[in-house]
Amino acid sequence: MVRDPSSAGQEEQDSPVRSEPRPGRGRRPAQQVRSQILAAADRLLRSEGMAGFSIERVAALAGASKMTIYKWWPTKGVLAFEAYAASVDDVLTMPDTGDIEADLTANVTTFVRLLRDTAAGRVMAELIGAAQTDPQLAATFRRVYLVPRRAVGIAALQVARQRGQIRSDVDLEVLSDQLWGACMYRLMMQHEPLTEHLAAELVRNLLTGVRP
Amino acid sequence: MVRDPSSAGQEEQDSPVRSEPRPGRGRRPAQQVRSQILAAADRLLRSEGMAGFSIERVAALAGASKMTIYKWWPTKGVLAFEAYAASVDDVLTMPDTGDIEADLTANVTTFVRLLRDTAAGRVMAELIGAAQTDPQLAATFRRVYLVPRRAVGIAALQVARQRGQIRSDVDLEVLSDQLWGACMYRLMMQHEPLTEHLAAELVRNLLTGVRP
Repeated sequence: MVRDPSSAGQEEQDSPVRSEPRPGRGRRPAQQVRSQILAAADRLLRSEGMAGFSIERVAALAGASKMTIYKWWPTKGVLAFEAYAASVDDVLTMPDTGDIEADLTANVTTFVRLLRDTAAGRVMAELIGAAQTDPQLAATFRRVYLVPRRAVGIAALQVARQRGQIRSDVDLEVLSDQLWGACMYRLMMQHEPLTEHLAAELVRNLLTGVRP
Repeated sequence: MVRDPSSAGQEEQDSPVRSEPRPGRGRRPAQQVRSQILAAADRLLRSEGMAGFSIERVAALAGASKMTIYKWWPTKGVLAFEAYAASVDDVLTMPDTGDIEADLTANVTTFVRLLRDTAAGRVMAELIGAAQTDPQLAATFRRVYLVPRRAVGIAALQVARQRGQIRSDVDLEVLSDQLWGACMYRLMMQHEPLTEHLAAELVRNLLTGVRP
């Protein structure tokens, strides 16, 4: 087992950077290799951020060749975003209790905690930061992470609109920017903390309106 | 007059990168030197972005010494943010007609146009992007630009609250993130365009609420 010495003393004890065990000498199925590479990339990102992230290190951690990785992911940025997206998809589910205020508050609260309490927040901020001077990385970010994630939120808003809980003339893209986008803004600016209070207020301001 | 050859063909015809005329041989007053340096830094930023920005080039354009610049601004990031903030302060005024919806819509529309139609948008995005891996630059950004700019918006929201146009229990910091923060989010993600429609909808969603 290859253990990265620089991962000692990392905060996340449940995701140390270690390599996948190789099952015997046989070739692993492609799907298994693919998910082991994504898992290794995610662990490396969370423990070291983009500064310590490279195709070479992911290859070593996943027990795969660099050529295998390049076959699926043309750049380390694409691999990083895809690994990130795969790891947060399970966490960021959208509940559907029929009460849009409760469902949105639950989802946005989970999102705030993910950004605040796990390494996902700094990884995301660094990737988006790098994307500001790298149009290819920016396009990858939108395709691999942002557009699919937004679609989940907007689908829930559409259901709420069909149920008569949101006005028919509301632009759901704008609404989405005022919920999850506002959280991302706090993540990147760090002018105010990411809190459960923030999540609840974001939803309440929009559903109730701020007029008396 | 020193004219930077790389500024030829830039989009902004009203702000070519050229040096300040030197008034005779006498020493200029410190305040004048300071504002000429900020103006030169702003022109350089708008024409070339952070990639072509350096203390050396600003010094040449402003007809000032590098030592003079370092006396006031410890790093090029601090100078860039301060130049940026000084140049947008005049544009981003907050009207006060007594109608908070009209005033906010006017201000947010101006902000959207600034981000979309001038080089200020890319300059801001690149600076914030670089700040994600540079804590000192991030702190400078908050101190020099973000906190003062937010204070202007929040002061207007406080006046509206005192006039009974906004509920007393609304967190104005959160509201601010859902207005100007949502614009910044679109600037950085580029998933949807920055439009006048966006500005109007951001304000309307919050003041009216999105429930039927």
